[in-house]
Amino acid sequence: MRILITGGAGFVGARLARELLRMGQLAGQTIRELAIADLAAPPADLLADSRITASTGPLSSHAGLFASGFDGVFHLAAAVSGECELDFDLGLRSNLDSTRLLLEGLRQAGNTPRLVFASSIAVYGADVGQTLPDIVSERTLPAPQTSYGAQKLMCEYLIADYTRKGFIDGRSARLMTVTVRPGRPNGAASSFFSGIIREPLAGIETACPVDRNVSHAFASPARTVEGLIAVYEADRAALGGRLALNLPSINGTIGEVLDALESVAGPKVRARVRFERDERIAGIVSHWARGASAERATALGLRADESFRSIIEQYIDDCRHRPGYPPEALRGLEG
Amino acid sequence: MRILITGGAGFVGARLARELLRMGQLAGQTIRELAIADLAAPPADLLADSRITASTGPLSSHAGLFASGFDGVFHLAAAVSGECELDFDLGLRSNLDSTRLLLEGLRQAGNTPRLVFASSIAVYGADVGQTLPDIVSERTLPAPQTSYGAQKLMCEYLIADYTRKGFIDGRSARLMTVTVRPGRPNGAASSFFSGIIREPLAGIETACPVDRNVSHAFASPARTVEGLIAVYEADRAALGGRLALNLPSINGTIGEVLDALESVAGPKVRARVRFERDERIAGIVSHWARGASAERATALGLRADESFRSIIEQYIDDCRHRPGYPPEALRGLEG
Repeated sequence: MRILITGGAGFVGARLARELLRMGQLAGQTIRELAIADLAAPPADLLADSRITASTGPLSSHAGLFASGFDGVFHLAAAVSGECELDFDLGLRSNLDSTRLLLEGLRQAGNTPRLVFASSIAVYGADVGQTLPDIVSERTLPAPQTSYGAQKLMCEYLIADYTRKGFIDGRSARLMTVTVRPGRPNGAASSFFSGIIREPLAGIETACPVDRNVSHAFASPARTVEGLIAVYEADRAALGGRLALNLPSINGTIGEVLDALESVAGPKVRARVRFERDERIAGIVSHWARGASAERATALGLRADESFRSIIEQYIDDCRHRPGYPPEALRGLEG
Repeated sequence: MRILITGGAGFVGARLARELLRMGQLAGQTIRELAIADLAAPPADLLADSRITASTGPLSSHAGLFASGFDGVFHLAAAVSGECELDFDLGLRSNLDSTRLLLEGLRQAGNTPRLVFASSIAVYGADVGQTLPDIVSERTLPAPQTSYGAQKLMCEYLIADYTRKGFIDGRSARLMTVTVRPGRPNGAASSFFSGIIREPLAGIETACPVDRNVSHAFASPARTVEGLIAVYEADRAALGGRLALNLPSINGTIGEVLDALESVAGPKVRARVRFERDERIAGIVSHWARGASAERATALGLRADESFRSIIEQYIDDCRHRPGYPPEALRGLEG
């Protein structure tokens, strides 16, 4: 079978690609080609696998690729929340127009490919004068408070309609905030959730732009990739009638994350995080969900991370054993 | 002030235009120009008013008009449900792309114009294996089962995001099925809801494509126009935090509609309706809401029609006194 990953050179996309190559098959079929479409070239370890083909450039240049007859697609490419707030047109172009171009290509191919769309917990939010439940569920009305979230939600409905029409077999997995992301901070408003773990472990002082009582919904990279694959492999009937579902999360506060960091890495590491409010980030985050439930993903057998400790231990283990983690990542770790 | 009505040559749009001209002002400001953008030219009675300007052609040709600095906009232009099911590309072009072009023009003008978007009860629907509540409320999760409904819902979220960004002051009024529409059947899957009243009153035999127990949510043209204007004039704070709201409806079955027709016009008129199932139409309608509530519109002071009788009496009165109703419309009325 031929699989496409858009955004496959990114952190989650490349990790998904490695896992698919390791598995060798998906939904019972052998993966013969794994195409990666992304702005940047995929990492060297992926390019070294003969099953990988890479198409580098903006998604808008890949109309022909999209129509070339894939059996399955993971659509992860997106401009992230912080940059979409700063550049409204970029968000519409990268998140809405590119998704339409992809869907049109898949429709033209005519083979009803399966598609998993990486949606986001950012579809939830509290309108002005409204309050969100402490835990958002799949029965909570989405009300995005970022352009990124609005575009993700619009794409969910577009994918549901393409599916209803029989053009694709689509489903949308709402990703929780993936933690810990390696490397440099990115333009996502949620970037600091990884930063407050990653930077102190690398020996770098870092600022947390929100209060320690801020609560959010987290998932490790491993659980996120597992979720994307499980949603791909699920029968549509098992999705419970709606095509968008929350992936499982562990819900908790910044304070709990830092307590876990201290318990894994010691007080000197934790002390590298200082609280320094950033009004722009804090404003965005104040409208976000403080936690999420994932009834339908749970029914598919998916589980959240056990603890913030296990998320941090997964990161430390990844730094030691996985490609894509810089050698200096654990320079600040004691002992 | 300068007002724009897209779709202002259509039935609801022209009726809204007449009402605005009669009022002479909107939200306390004098209407100096009422621009109508539509595929077709507006009716003669509108063109005769010096405040009317007409731009005839597809919305895609009106980018300059949209950016010309309107104070307020009623966005009614759309391809309807039945034709969007038959022509998927038409729906995306007419309903999604045209709305984006309009919103971009309004954003470019830079004066944060107020906009009322005519959304639809078609945003609600039951996914396969799911059931809708008997009465959909504003807390019911939308799940459109037509491309038309999906496109309307996507536009609601786009308008909410343009509003959050301060580019426009937008709100979405979900129209119930407007009954009785005069003239010929149109491409809407809901067209027959008007047809089973209009045709027998004109002396024409007609087929009802669904069972008499099918229930739905209806509003008269007068209540619909009143709702659009009230949603325009409402303070954003009065909308209750969310920008999309249901307009009030009277909920009931085909059987109840026909009972009302008989009570107003006699058994001979009712007998002109025969039941002849149309699988395409019945399939679409089977996924629709059987009734709706409208808490937030009610809080704005809006009311549903009193009865199906009053809806039919309004139509008969309109046929006798309003422009746009053909002279033969009541040819089948007894006595």
